[in-house]
Amino acid sequence: MYMEKILCRGFSFSGVVSGLKKNSQKDLGLIYSEVPTSIAGVFTKNRVQAAPVLLDRERIKKGLCQAVIANSGSANCCTGDQGMKDAISEAKLAASGLNISEELVLVASTGVIGKPLALDKIESAVPALVKSLSPSGINDFAQAIMTTDTVPKIVSRNGNIGGSGFNITGVAKGAGMICPDMATMLCFVCTDAEASPGYLQEALASSVDKSFNRITIDGDTSTNDTVLVMANGMSGASVKSRSEKEYFRKLLDEVLMELAKMVVKDGEGATKLVDVIVEGASSVKDAEKIAKTVANSNLVKTALFGEDANWGRIFAAAGRSGVKFDPGLVDICFDDVLMVKNGMGCGDAAEREVTKVLKKSEFAITVDLKTGDGKASVLTCDFSIDYVKINADYRS
Amino acid sequence: MYMEKILCRGFSFSGVVSGLKKNSQKDLGLIYSEVPTSIAGVFTKNRVQAAPVLLDRERIKKGLCQAVIANSGSANCCTGDQGMKDAISEAKLAASGLNISEELVLVASTGVIGKPLALDKIESAVPALVKSLSPSGINDFAQAIMTTDTVPKIVSRNGNIGGSGFNITGVAKGAGMICPDMATMLCFVCTDAEASPGYLQEALASSVDKSFNRITIDGDTSTNDTVLVMANGMSGASVKSRSEKEYFRKLLDEVLMELAKMVVKDGEGATKLVDVIVEGASSVKDAEKIAKTVANSNLVKTALFGEDANWGRIFAAAGRSGVKFDPGLVDICFDDVLMVKNGMGCGDAAEREVTKVLKKSEFAITVDLKTGDGKASVLTCDFSIDYVKINADYRS
Repeated sequence: MYMEKILCRGFSFSGVVSGLKKNSQKDLGLIYSEVPTSIAGVFTKNRVQAAPVLLDRERIKKGLCQAVIANSGSANCCTGDQGMKDAISEAKLAASGLNISEELVLVASTGVIGKPLALDKIESAVPALVKSLSPSGINDFAQAIMTTDTVPKIVSRNGNIGGSGFNITGVAKGAGMICPDMATMLCFVCTDAEASPGYLQEALASSVDKSFNRITIDGDTSTNDTVLVMANGMSGASVKSRSEKEYFRKLLDEVLMELAKMVVKDGEGATKLVDVIVEGASSVKDAEKIAKTVANSNLVKTALFGEDANWGRIFAAAGRSGVKFDPGLVDICFDDVLMVKNGMGCGDAAEREVTKVLKKSEFAITVDLKTGDGKASVLTCDFSIDYVKINADYRS
Repeated sequence: MYMEKILCRGFSFSGVVSGLKKNSQKDLGLIYSEVPTSIAGVFTKNRVQAAPVLLDRERIKKGLCQAVIANSGSANCCTGDQGMKDAISEAKLAASGLNISEELVLVASTGVIGKPLALDKIESAVPALVKSLSPSGINDFAQAIMTTDTVPKIVSRNGNIGGSGFNITGVAKGAGMICPDMATMLCFVCTDAEASPGYLQEALASSVDKSFNRITIDGDTSTNDTVLVMANGMSGASVKSRSEKEYFRKLLDEVLMELAKMVVKDGEGATKLVDVIVEGASSVKDAEKIAKTVANSNLVKTALFGEDANWGRIFAAAGRSGVKFDPGLVDICFDDVLMVKNGMGCGDAAEREVTKVLKKSEFAITVDLKTGDGKASVLTCDFSIDYVKINADYRS
């Protein structure tokens, strides 16, 4: 639970039980701003996109929004024309409860693909959802969007522009279908600063690239990924000059990076958070390719779970990444312990030190190709027996 | 165990315990032909290649071979200059035991990466290895190259060219680091037909493309993949004319395809063999891309293990493959049960039928994009709790 007091002026939140989830847990959430906000969004690159993603893509074009309704328990994806009608109806139900234009409402869904949305349950729950809106309701909202997440994920930062304090607060869900090709999850960011939709879009795309595009849990990209930023300007702080824009973007980076880290840490079955760093590559692109291949390798991830200093798997994953490099130059470190020097293992003493590092819950693996200046990193988690258990039984 | 009597004239086989493996199981194998053979080979595309792979690549250039010594327990990879010296010494030990030129001996290693080869153990074991060579020793050889394999893998076919009967016998090991980018395993094929090295190379490359390049267990490509074909001509059957070449290639295809199937079926922790077929794509390349993405998806594979008709994961994996297609046209079948029609689920009755298919140990998933003529398939297995257990504990 996020206990700190968050003040993001004009925003209120709620989360209720509608019955979409089987286990009587919160599954319907609402974010509402007293006044319309600037809006920007980044969405999944999956060719198969859920109805709410298609709807939001259209609606954010006008740059204005006032509320987001989000449900777990159903992804409303591969649901055909009916799915789009249902997404529009879901927005309409929220709009009429809030007494605002339906065009100002965005929708996000997460859960099982292919299951029709039980709109009747949403309809029955909307009055309570609207009634329970509160500036301090963000924990309820965060819980309502969880699927296999074990903790709600909320990050908040305060800033100051020209003497006016403002706040940026983000809430996210992750856990599965997480891959660095896009922010594979739902994330909603609210700020009471004033910013144009065009600037917000640019800042969001850049922040997502540094955060959610650099994490992986299982290499699968979801059909419902959505990151939205709403800026309502109610703090009086206005993001206009170049330096103000840089400043705001830095705070946004912090919020998204911390959320991204929380998402990996709470990856399905994860017990370890591992930063895979590749340096000395011929280019940043090469470094990224290797980092992603290592971070996604099942053999690497199961070895991390087993706390096994099996560095050969890291080396082999780098080798199959498609990047050309000289294996005879490669160094591999676990935190600051050198395990591989010029392509060869450093022996049993080094391995004993590495085994100590592997027992930690957070550490870094650095692969140095010693060829150029290209550097990149990807956050990953280990691959546990619980991942398989969670995903074999997900729908039952 | 392969009980059928195999007669591949002039070839003998053996497998002994040298102590490279911890558990007192066979770990050193030998294949020997009474006369020098034509030789062809296909090797891993991993940038990191084991010493024996580098050595074999050089030695097969002359097109001649007479023996292969293979060990499990150590991959002799990432072992630097010493690793190459050790691979040469391993060949030399076999050559001097057999009293043939060391240039005619190839080497294959499989096991943990980065561990130096315990050459003293091999040296002590070579006399017994040579002494126990026998035309019926192929089961011993097959056991000697196993790592996490649970069964030895041997396939044999008889053919006839111009009245002369001949035999093709293949033996393989697989289990982990299996990915369709190359035959990710060791495989040795012996034939008593006569064939030129040039033809053998061409036939082997084409057969590998149809077999080992179409299987996946965990998406990881190993550093030691080696497929060798030895042809000693002792049957008197000679592969020369175009039709004879086609005929031989067909038999070779059968041997490699059956071995590839055995490798997936015995994938680490696997309980199911699943043929992922993609048809109606714009091109074969597109079909391949989708089939590989679906076949490698952890979310798909864990759902298969859970016998969960979670077709949305198949759809989502296809969507992130990078191939453009219209989701609204897609059909998905499990064997002959239609589960998804024009991008939407066919309902509970279909799902109950699919659940029956999922209980089988072998079945097919067909994704039809209904756009063009491109078709491809990849054999995969499910992803079980045992996969994680095996790979978390592999070295301990």
